Amino acid sequence: MISKEEALNLILNTVKPIGTETVSLENSLDMVLADDIYSKDYLPPFNKSAMDGYAIKSSDTTKENLTFNIIKTIKAGDFFNGVVNNGEAYKIMTGAPVPAGADCVIQIEKVKVNGSKLTVPENLSEGLNIIKKGEEIEVGQIALKKNQCIRPMEIGMLASLGYSSVNVYKKPVVGLIITGDELVDITNNLTLGKIRNSNEHTLKALIAKTGAKSLSYGIIKDEKEVLKNSIKNALEASDIIITSGGASVGDYDFTSQVLEELNCEELFSSVAIKPGKPISFWKFNNKYIFSLPGNPLSALITFEEFIKPAIEKIMNKYNKKELFPVMLGDCFKGKTGRDKYILVRIENENGKNVAYKIGSQSSNALMTSTKANGVVILPKESNKANVGEFLYGKYLF
Amino acid sequence: MISKEEALNLILNTVKPIGTETVSLENSLDMVLADDIYSKDYLPPFNKSAMDGYAIKSSDTTKENLTFNIIKTIKAGDFFNGVVNNGEAYKIMTGAPVPAGADCVIQIEKVKVNGSKLTVPENLSEGLNIIKKGEEIEVGQIALKKNQCIRPMEIGMLASLGYSSVNVYKKPVVGLIITGDELVDITNNLTLGKIRNSNEHTLKALIAKTGAKSLSYGIIKDEKEVLKNSIKNALEASDIIITSGGASVGDYDFTSQVLEELNCEELFSSVAIKPGKPISFWKFNNKYIFSLPGNPLSALITFEEFIKPAIEKIMNKYNKKELFPVMLGDCFKGKTGRDKYILVRIENENGKNVAYKIGSQSSNALMTSTKANGVVILPKESNKANVGEFLYGKYLF
Repeated sequence: MISKEEALNLILNTVKPIGTETVSLENSLDMVLADDIYSKDYLPPFNKSAMDGYAIKSSDTTKENLTFNIIKTIKAGDFFNGVVNNGEAYKIMTGAPVPAGADCVIQIEKVKVNGSKLTVPENLSEGLNIIKKGEEIEVGQIALKKNQCIRPMEIGMLASLGYSSVNVYKKPVVGLIITGDELVDITNNLTLGKIRNSNEHTLKALIAKTGAKSLSYGIIKDEKEVLKNSIKNALEASDIIITSGGASVGDYDFTSQVLEELNCEELFSSVAIKPGKPISFWKFNNKYIFSLPGNPLSALITFEEFIKPAIEKIMNKYNKKELFPVMLGDCFKGKTGRDKYILVRIENENGKNVAYKIGSQSSNALMTSTKANGVVILPKESNKANVGEFLYGKYLF
Repeated sequence: MISKEEALNLILNTVKPIGTETVSLENSLDMVLADDIYSKDYLPPFNKSAMDGYAIKSSDTTKENLTFNIIKTIKAGDFFNGVVNNGEAYKIMTGAPVPAGADCVIQIEKVKVNGSKLTVPENLSEGLNIIKKGEEIEVGQIALKKNQCIRPMEIGMLASLGYSSVNVYKKPVVGLIITGDELVDITNNLTLGKIRNSNEHTLKALIAKTGAKSLSYGIIKDEKEVLKNSIKNALEASDIIITSGGASVGDYDFTSQVLEELNCEELFSSVAIKPGKPISFWKFNNKYIFSLPGNPLSALITFEEFIKPAIEKIMNKYNKKELFPVMLGDCFKGKTGRDKYILVRIENENGKNVAYKIGSQSSNALMTSTKANGVVILPKESNKANVGEFLYGKYLF
């Protein structure tokens, strides 16, 4: 049994990106750039008016002369090829190119207009209300760096620069193999001894939230050859495989045997965490396999702690999540020897985070998890934490 | 001009959910339940073994007798109809139903087995390693309450209870109308006076992140009748409409005129916020229209502050976002009169959040936004905040 820190380090040191791919801009949201993005244009591509107003020469505004002849209007999208002369003003709309000769724009709200005569209130300074050509970026400069995550603003920047597709780190396909002869599909009635398959659905949702793709093989019978064939198929079609159930020491827990027979390499087989202790992690060429116990809370916690980081590592977007101190509003207990992940409701009380009990922490109690918005961690050396004490915790989703 | 608090309150008091719909469990992730969910089953549906081990009668374990005859094995998914008698032990797998007569399960790791003889180490207590029928939930109890957001654990719970579809609050369709004769499509070369359309792509990404659907009408010419027809079409097909550009006082800013002519009701027309001041908010029956200025940072900030809350209100998942104090690592300036949203990089330094400058805050500078991970707000009454002072702020995405 290794510590959760050792387990996470083993995962992060083992898992590597699986390559890059070119995707449309729309599909690049929340993925990570695999190349530096250079600008092929000046942004803005011309001296641009930041206001609706009048473009004039600033040197033309003197105490003696604050009145100009309005020559014509330049709309956004227009381009006026001529030059602004002394005594001339061009009406100009926000976003329109400032004509040659003019070097300032006076806002429409600040002027007086009488027929074709414009009067400005004062001397104007060079550059007023003009966004200079290339002020945002120049041709050949790096606009976005490799390894940057693509958020809505990066999407906007890429569109501005004319990129309708980009090269990003691939998202993994996560194969799901759900075992357990006690499981029936969601729409079935519960006959004697059966329960419904919930882990498949929880795991699909967890995978969807990471941005990866899931590929489910449905409920697989607790028979060694059947399981072996499913895992073989999944190894062909997936980058990460999650098996649920069959991870323990029971007579029908074949997962480890099967993975060994398929020449997968076991990197760890048990972690000092509760729930989730029987998790094991395997490697087969550039494929990664997580074998999870079948109970729902174990699946939830081990996914968040170990599988999500692996997916993020592949997508080159792993960031260590910061835990924060949470004050206990209830007393929490557990056996020493494992880090106990306790599902709680974290309330914000006068700026303090306070954690409250929400129900049974039995690793089967999915019901409890629906009342939780966070977890606190009772460390392995500790068997109790009292009201008012602090534990490290975090929010879930 | 109203304050941003008044604007947000007006939006939240005006916007109502647009109804509910039944979606498949898979599509319900991050939506909000429109009904209470009752359990039609006991969970677990039978007394379930929490361990791989042996089921016996606890009263049968005495100092004199710790040895039992192993009768048969009960796998998960099996159901044994008989009764466990004195002196008998049934091997039982995790998740299998505990047979009648037995009231405890001793873990496989703790026993000795010799042929068909089982020896347990000590007297066993009733209930040991048994998850009682209905311990998680009983028939007729409420499993999940109306208005609860469906996260991965709620998906798991709903699957356990046999719900393959659920009734949720509808997500809105958000129509996008991008105006500006200076705009060309992303793949076009920049001819004189033109820039590329970025707001459409930024807004689509922002909408995607809320879970709503976007419906874009592309770039609409700065002609009143063309704009009017587009808005008419959008009012048919969308629940929320966002117009970008044409919101100001320029000669080709027709949006307000058009909305008035279409009998839309204006709820506010200008907000004391920078960037984003020209935003206006309109209502037409149960449709909501946001008219945004065309510059990219205004679109980004006003979406986050006003449109996202409206979308969340429709989906019944609006939660006030908490701002937190951020220490300034640089000095920030701005004119009084409006709340200035300053894009910054927030660094965590020894547990303190410190905000640093990242570049031009001109409302055109999309480039700046790609270097930001947060905003700080320099309040309207303030024109400067120095290094070491605190402002309220938050992370972006």
